[in-house]
Amino acid sequence: MWKSTNNQALRERALKVIPGGMYGHESTGMLPPDFPQYFERAEGTRLWDVDGNCYIDYMCAFGPNLLGYGHAGVAEAAARQAALGDTMTGPSAAMVELAELFVGMVSHADWAMFCKNGTDATSMAMVCTRAHHNKRKILVAHGTYHGAAPWCTPNPAGITAEDRSHIIGFRYDDLDSLEQAVAQAGNDLAGIFATPFRHEVFADQFLPSPEYAHRVRAICDERDALLVVDEVRSGFRLARDCSWAALGVQPDLSCWGKAIANGHALSALLGSEKARAAAQRIYVTGSFWFQAVPMAAAVATLRELRDGDYLERITHTGQLLRDGLAAQAATHGFALRQTGPVQMPQILFEDDPDMRMGYAWTSSAIRRGVYLHPYHNMFLNAALTPADVALTLEVTDQAFAELKHQRPTLAPQANPKVLARLQSMAAAQPTRLAA
Amino acid sequence: MWKSTNNQALRERALKVIPGGMYGHESTGMLPPDFPQYFERAEGTRLWDVDGNCYIDYMCAFGPNLLGYGHAGVAEAAARQAALGDTMTGPSAAMVELAELFVGMVSHADWAMFCKNGTDATSMAMVCTRAHHNKRKILVAHGTYHGAAPWCTPNPAGITAEDRSHIIGFRYDDLDSLEQAVAQAGNDLAGIFATPFRHEVFADQFLPSPEYAHRVRAICDERDALLVVDEVRSGFRLARDCSWAALGVQPDLSCWGKAIANGHALSALLGSEKARAAAQRIYVTGSFWFQAVPMAAAVATLRELRDGDYLERITHTGQLLRDGLAAQAATHGFALRQTGPVQMPQILFEDDPDMRMGYAWTSSAIRRGVYLHPYHNMFLNAALTPADVALTLEVTDQAFAELKHQRPTLAPQANPKVLARLQSMAAAQPTRLAA
Repeated sequence: MWKSTNNQALRERALKVIPGGMYGHESTGMLPPDFPQYFERAEGTRLWDVDGNCYIDYMCAFGPNLLGYGHAGVAEAAARQAALGDTMTGPSAAMVELAELFVGMVSHADWAMFCKNGTDATSMAMVCTRAHHNKRKILVAHGTYHGAAPWCTPNPAGITAEDRSHIIGFRYDDLDSLEQAVAQAGNDLAGIFATPFRHEVFADQFLPSPEYAHRVRAICDERDALLVVDEVRSGFRLARDCSWAALGVQPDLSCWGKAIANGHALSALLGSEKARAAAQRIYVTGSFWFQAVPMAAAVATLRELRDGDYLERITHTGQLLRDGLAAQAATHGFALRQTGPVQMPQILFEDDPDMRMGYAWTSSAIRRGVYLHPYHNMFLNAALTPADVALTLEVTDQAFAELKHQRPTLAPQANPKVLARLQSMAAAQPTRLAA
Repeated sequence: MWKSTNNQALRERALKVIPGGMYGHESTGMLPPDFPQYFERAEGTRLWDVDGNCYIDYMCAFGPNLLGYGHAGVAEAAARQAALGDTMTGPSAAMVELAELFVGMVSHADWAMFCKNGTDATSMAMVCTRAHHNKRKILVAHGTYHGAAPWCTPNPAGITAEDRSHIIGFRYDDLDSLEQAVAQAGNDLAGIFATPFRHEVFADQFLPSPEYAHRVRAICDERDALLVVDEVRSGFRLARDCSWAALGVQPDLSCWGKAIANGHALSALLGSEKARAAAQRIYVTGSFWFQAVPMAAAVATLRELRDGDYLERITHTGQLLRDGLAAQAATHGFALRQTGPVQMPQILFEDDPDMRMGYAWTSSAIRRGVYLHPYHNMFLNAALTPADVALTLEVTDQAFAELKHQRPTLAPQANPKVLARLQSMAAAQPTRLAA
């Protein structure tokens, strides 16, 4: 019996001591009301909320738990280091070991710097591109998420025009738009941020054309600018290397986070020899950047990623889920848009401009023990088994059946903030490229 | 027998895979060569480097371990939560409990937001002051450290003029300079960053005058700007409340980090009712901001701070250390400048413009098992006992004796980067206020 009493009580307490009750990407403020805000525990691919409801979790904390919650090898490495020391007056040997291991896995990288937030890594990349030759302009594709600092946060409250005065936008995967932005930067082009693939909320995902990736690389070479690939979200879910290595394109800098320590707080900037001098010139730091526990956890995680079959497994289970959902949707008379790599699926309903169907369907799944997201890409973890996918598909089949029944009388589920956003996106998006 | 073989080997490996071999505030690049870069373990107030040398540590990882390394109550709370879950698809109940506890301790605060870096908290404060009434100018005292983001990092490499185009500098604790800056901001004053006391590297520390603190508050009230007190470094080392509560001055926002979870990665922005709406409007987040383990550790830490006698103990041991060092220095014919609160001592030698004496003395102490810092304020932790201070004073007595012997032939110890910095500081500092 699904309950939400404890969640509700915590939400009410939170409203007093946390602005708006919650903030950031883990806020359920834009989700259907059935989505729990607070969780009690997690194990493998299962997640329990504070009311004891158990979910098969397709978010993995928005990415981090790639090997599954509480992976034994990683947990053991972390506990072993925690017994010795964590935040000390200097780093432990694990920092050097981790840098060597990471650089050994990512083919473009010759060095690594570690930090805490994905935003730390992307902001350091930005500063590095500018320190490289004292140029200023940074090209960033319209609407791509690179973090929540003033130069990149998606919400303009408290942000000044000057925070972005050297950021030039272009349309992702659109060569004409890219060339226009390059021309606008002139001799002041410091770097280009090139999201490995398009993964934005409320929108279909897609991979860029190889031509785009190669052209970005060529422009950076011609103008001695630095190419940055932001792998914070996608890192190690597409490949055991930088995602663009498969396209034959090597960046100068890559940003990592989320999954690299399987849920421990760690992010990283990796760079090639060319960018080393710039990285050495900048001053960046943080109180907890030298913690030994997340680094020991990352060493264990990266070894498992390098030597194990996690990638083959998440690709297999991801495909099982995608195929199963496509068949169910057809049977029940719905058309789904399942986009992006199967390991990071985005699932949207066709002809659902206000998302009433997506919201109702994921609400129905939540109440039956499957945590799917109505508008954010999901993340498969390696603890998910084909049997878990089969259980998931039993639930989604019931959710489709319920949705079919509700459909004629379904009202919009999303709150006014989401509806306004969807309307403005629809108005701004004559094609997928304008996302 | 003091050794550095393993440290040396790690430094050489690091040079290949970490730019410059190390970065940030835990780099030993500006310290005497005897200072170890890598550590093996820590317990209470003791720290062991990778060569097995043991130190009484007066840095506490630059602040975080206020209760001592591996404090049993905090470690137990963290382990209990780690067995349940850490980085999940949403926060745990500990987040609400922590916000309630924190707000209950800090008298100006009505709400809390949690993040990872001190820089996250100060940057969020900056964005909040701007979101409050859509004004832009922020007053920041010259040379104060508020983090390592583009708007505040002390090193200009990779930073553009626009990153700071709305930051107006003033001389700390100087009312004329403050008023000039306020006039310059005109009707566009968003907020004032008011470091609780002056604690900068290479310089004496000092508390501000009450007049300064009250004037800053009055200006913010007159102009409906927000007053920010950055407690990241000083939080809970001067008081069980915001440091300025003792002056009768309540800020609108305060920034916390380092010590609030006794070494676990957590920082926080606290705010008053007046600032709540602004905090609710901004978009800030991070992959690991909702981790349950650091929040559970912080709940245990804050309870211990609230209910225990840590503050009386670090004040007592700090005074023992200061008095002991002053007596020893006089005996050996040296004049020390011991400034700031005894819980966060800064120790510099008089007449030591190139720091050759400070470097030699702390080198001598390091080789004898006491980790003192030659130019950064230190941090006392509550695990330090009067017996530890007595042991420390035995070592420093030997170090003074050695220094007296070396003095006639002592050459500058600091590297060229430090010497250049000291020269430029000396040139720029006709009085302490120009720091």
